[in-house]
Amino acid sequence: MPRVVVDVMLKPEILDPQGKAVHGALERLGFDGISAVRQGKRFEIELDGKEASDAVAEIEEAASTLLANPVIEDFDVRVEP
Amino acid sequence: MPRVVVDVMLKPEILDPQGKAVHGALERLGFDGISAVRQGKRFEIELDGKEASDAVAEIEEAASTLLANPVIEDFDVRVEP
Repeated sequence: MPRVVVDVMLKPEILDPQGKAVHGALERLGFDGISAVRQGKRFEIELDGKEASDAVAEIEEAASTLLANPVIEDFDVRVEP
Repeated sequence: MPRVVVDVMLKPEILDPQGKAVHGALERLGFDGISAVRQGKRFEIELDGKEASDAVAEIEEAASTLLANPVIEDFDVRVEP
């Protein structure tokens, strides 16, 4: 069943302490060759029989209302098979 | 610059209280037609000049070591342009 996925990430200019902490931990574990890590949220939204493509506009509104803080976060809405 | 993205989601059989809370809030805001919401984490990993495709195996190991808890979470590693 197709679903709509919403990825929410901090805007590039916003400091990402969680990402920095993960980056540091990866380096301490010996994973080198990584220049930066940014952490965000992923929402998988299942729909009640409605066509996923029809719901994208509505989900975009929901994302900017509830799932993301448009002041500091960017979001991306897409349909996944 | 290509980067490696790691999506971490709770396994389907694991209860997702955050997802349920988001689902309830969306319904209260009038977004109907949604049967379920699951929330997870997204990591965007920038690499130091290394080929993203070469780093996937290493990032998969990092994901199962640090980014995800393999007991309750599934993860997916892919290269994004």
